[in-house]
Amino acid sequence: MTDDKRAVEVKESSLVLAAVSIVERNNCLKALSSLLKENKDEIFKANHKDLEKGVKEGLDQPLLDRLKFDEEKLLEVVSGIEDLILMEDPLNKSLLKRELSEDLILEKLTCPIGVIGVIFESRPDALVQISALCIKSGNAVILKGGSEALNTNKALFQIIKEAGKSTGFPENFILLLETREDTLTLLSWDRYVDLIIPRGSNEFVRYIKDNSRIPVMGHADGVCHIYVDERADLEKALNIIWDSKTDYVAACNAVETLLVHKNIAEIFLPMVFKKLKDDVKMKGCENTGKIINVPLLKDEDYHTEYLDYKLSIKVVDSLNSAVDHINKYGSHHTDAIITEDENSAKSFFNKVDSAGVYHNCSTRFADGYRYGFGAEVGISTGKLHARGPVGLEGLLTYKYILRGKGHTLADFKKGERAFSFKDL
Amino acid sequence: MTDDKRAVEVKESSLVLAAVSIVERNNCLKALSSLLKENKDEIFKANHKDLEKGVKEGLDQPLLDRLKFDEEKLLEVVSGIEDLILMEDPLNKSLLKRELSEDLILEKLTCPIGVIGVIFESRPDALVQISALCIKSGNAVILKGGSEALNTNKALFQIIKEAGKSTGFPENFILLLETREDTLTLLSWDRYVDLIIPRGSNEFVRYIKDNSRIPVMGHADGVCHIYVDERADLEKALNIIWDSKTDYVAACNAVETLLVHKNIAEIFLPMVFKKLKDDVKMKGCENTGKIINVPLLKDEDYHTEYLDYKLSIKVVDSLNSAVDHINKYGSHHTDAIITEDENSAKSFFNKVDSAGVYHNCSTRFADGYRYGFGAEVGISTGKLHARGPVGLEGLLTYKYILRGKGHTLADFKKGERAFSFKDL
Repeated sequence: MTDDKRAVEVKESSLVLAAVSIVERNNCLKALSSLLKENKDEIFKANHKDLEKGVKEGLDQPLLDRLKFDEEKLLEVVSGIEDLILMEDPLNKSLLKRELSEDLILEKLTCPIGVIGVIFESRPDALVQISALCIKSGNAVILKGGSEALNTNKALFQIIKEAGKSTGFPENFILLLETREDTLTLLSWDRYVDLIIPRGSNEFVRYIKDNSRIPVMGHADGVCHIYVDERADLEKALNIIWDSKTDYVAACNAVETLLVHKNIAEIFLPMVFKKLKDDVKMKGCENTGKIINVPLLKDEDYHTEYLDYKLSIKVVDSLNSAVDHINKYGSHHTDAIITEDENSAKSFFNKVDSAGVYHNCSTRFADGYRYGFGAEVGISTGKLHARGPVGLEGLLTYKYILRGKGHTLADFKKGERAFSFKDL
Repeated sequence: MTDDKRAVEVKESSLVLAAVSIVERNNCLKALSSLLKENKDEIFKANHKDLEKGVKEGLDQPLLDRLKFDEEKLLEVVSGIEDLILMEDPLNKSLLKRELSEDLILEKLTCPIGVIGVIFESRPDALVQISALCIKSGNAVILKGGSEALNTNKALFQIIKEAGKSTGFPENFILLLETREDTLTLLSWDRYVDLIIPRGSNEFVRYIKDNSRIPVMGHADGVCHIYVDERADLEKALNIIWDSKTDYVAACNAVETLLVHKNIAEIFLPMVFKKLKDDVKMKGCENTGKIINVPLLKDEDYHTEYLDYKLSIKVVDSLNSAVDHINKYGSHHTDAIITEDENSAKSFFNKVDSAGVYHNCSTRFADGYRYGFGAEVGISTGKLHARGPVGLEGLLTYKYILRGKGHTLADFKKGERAFSFKDL
C-alpha cells in the first residue's frame, strides 16, 4: 500500500502538470540545463563511484561505456535539452476543429498521456533525456534505472527534481525507483501508469512486455532485411548492404538477413562475398552454398538479431517469396528493396508489413533524428499508437473539447437544430 | 494447433488484403449490399430460429430486441454500407512527406492494422457493420458472436464471405468463431490478432481486457459527469441535465453524477428535484440531503454506471473539487461543465482528464456520428492509439516509406551528403 501511495502521488501530480503552461515547462528545462552544468562535478563523482564498482564487479567494456557519464555525455544531454526548449509547444495543438451545428464547436486538442514509466539498463544519459521529453510534453515520469548506475541516477534525479521545484512544478512529477523489486512494482501499477517505455536489450524488453498490463512502446527485436531484386543496380546494392551491416552492428536498424533474387544470385553473391568476407561472418541457405563458400544456416538464424558482424543470406525465387520471408521471419522494423524497377518497389511497399519500408537506401536511416523528429522517444515495432521512430508526439494523446450554448440532443430530435459538419 | 492454423490463414490473408485497391474494396462492399438484399428472407428465417430459441430460453426483452434482425435493421445496415462506399479511401493517405536529403524522400502512409478481432454479444447488425468497416479499411477480421445469435451470424457471415469471394478477396479475410471456447482461443491469438474490439456490457469488456495480451479498443465504463458551476445559467443547466440523463439511459454517454457548486446549491437543487423527480431516482451526498429530500448515497455510487433512470448528486466546494472528483471517480469518457464564465470553462478543459470535455452542452453528443465521423468503430476510454469516439481511422496504422538512390549513412558521415529536412 505504501508503494501505491507513491504511484497515487505521481498520478495526482500528472493531472496538475497537464495544465502547466509552455513558458513554465520551458523554464523547467532551462533550469535543468543550468543545474546540470553547475553540478557537474557532483554528477561525475557519483558516476566514478558507479564505474569503480562496475570495474570491481567485472562489467564488460560496452556496459562500462554506456554507464560512463562524463563531460562529453553532459554536453550531449545539455545540447539535447536546448534543442527541446526551441521546439514548439506540443500541447493544445488543434488536430481538428469542426462546427457540428450552429454554435456547437468540436475541437480535438493534443494533451499529455499522463504518467510515463521508463525502465532502462545503465545509460544515465537516457534518464535525463527521457525526463526532459516528459517535461516538454507535460507528462509525469517514473524512472527505474539499473542498479549499476544507482549513484549517477540519484544525482541526476535530484537535479531534475530541483529544476521542477524551482519552477513551480507539482512536487511528485518525477519519481525514481531504485531497487530490483521496484521493477515489478512499477509493472503492477497499471491503474496509475499509462505507458511504459523500456530502454535496453531484447530480452529486457520482452520481459517487460510479458510482465505488465500497461501498454509498452518499444521494440524487442530488429531483424531487418535487404532484398536485392533481379533488376537491382548491383554496385548500389553492395554499398547499401555494407552500410546497413557494418556502420554500427549493435543498432536495431542494422541488417541481419540478405535476400537475393535467384536470377542474379550467381553474379551477385560472389560480389557480396568478396566485399564482406574480411569483416562479416556469413551463413547461407542451400542455394547460397552452391555459389559461395559459406556455412549452411538453420531456420532459427532467420529469426536471429545478430547485433554483430554476422549476416544470413538466402536465395529467393521472386519478390513475393522475399516479401513472404520478411513478413514471416522479420520483426516489422525496417526492410529494404534494392531495384531499378519502380513497380517492384511499389509492390514491396504495399506488401511488406513493417514500420519502415525502404527503396534503394540503407536500413540505418530508421531513426528519429534522421527522420527530422528532433527528439526521439524510441522506435516502436507495435502497430497501435505509434509505429517506427517516435518523436515527442509519442508522448501525447488528445481530448475532444465541445463548446455549446445549451445544446441538447432533444433539440436535434425535435428538428429545432440540425447537424452542419463544417470544418473550420 | 488446428486452432492456430485458422489464425495463420487469416493473418496471411490480411497481408494480401492490405494491397487490395480501393476499387476492389468498394466492389466488395457493393456486392455485400446486394447480397444482403437478395438473401434477406434467408437471413430473417435464420433470425427467427434464434429469436424462437431465445424466447424459449427466457431471454429478456432488451436482449431479444438487440437480437432481432428484421427489415428495419437490414435497411440500416445497407444504408451504412452505402455511406461507407462513398467515403474516400482511408488507405495510402500521406500523413507526412519530407525530403531528408537530396533524393532521399520520406513518406508516412496510412495502412490497415492487419487482423481485427471483434467479440460481441447478440446484435447481428454489429457483425455486418464492423465487417464492412474492415473491408473498407483493408483489415482482415475474426468475428466471435454470441451463441444466442448463432444462426443469424452464420447466415450473415456466409454472405460477407461470398461478397469477398465474388470480388477476388483472399479467401480467409474473414473468420467466424462459434463456440464459447473459441472466445478464449481468440484471446490467446496475440501473435496473429493486432487489435480486439469488444462490443457489449461493461463486465464483458472488462473480462476481455483481463484475459488477453492483445490490445483492446473500447470502453468498459461510461461514468459521465455534469458540473454546474456557480456562474451557470440555471435553466440551461436544467435542460442539459435532463437531456444527458433521460434521452437514452442505456447509453455510455448518459450522465450518472451531477456535481453542483455549493454557492448555487440551495437555489438549484430544488429546481433539479422538481424537474427530475417523476422520472429519475436521485441519491445525494449529505449536503444535498440538507436541501432536497433524497436518499444518502454511498461512495461506491460515485463509481457506478447506472444505465438507468438514476442520478447521483454531490455538492462541491469549487471547480477544483469538481475536477478532482471527476478525475478520481469518472471513467474518462465525457464530462461537462455548465457555466457562463469562459475562464472556468478553460480551466475545466485543461484539468479534466477525459476523452470528451464539454461546455454548456449535453454529454449525449459523445458519438462518432454526431462528431461527423460517418462510420463509428467504437468509443475508446483508453489514451493510446485512439481516444473518444473512433471513426475508420481507428482501424488504421501507418508505415514509413523511404526512397533513395543508393543513400548510405556513410555518405553523411563522410560529409558527402547532408540532411536538409524539407517538408514537401
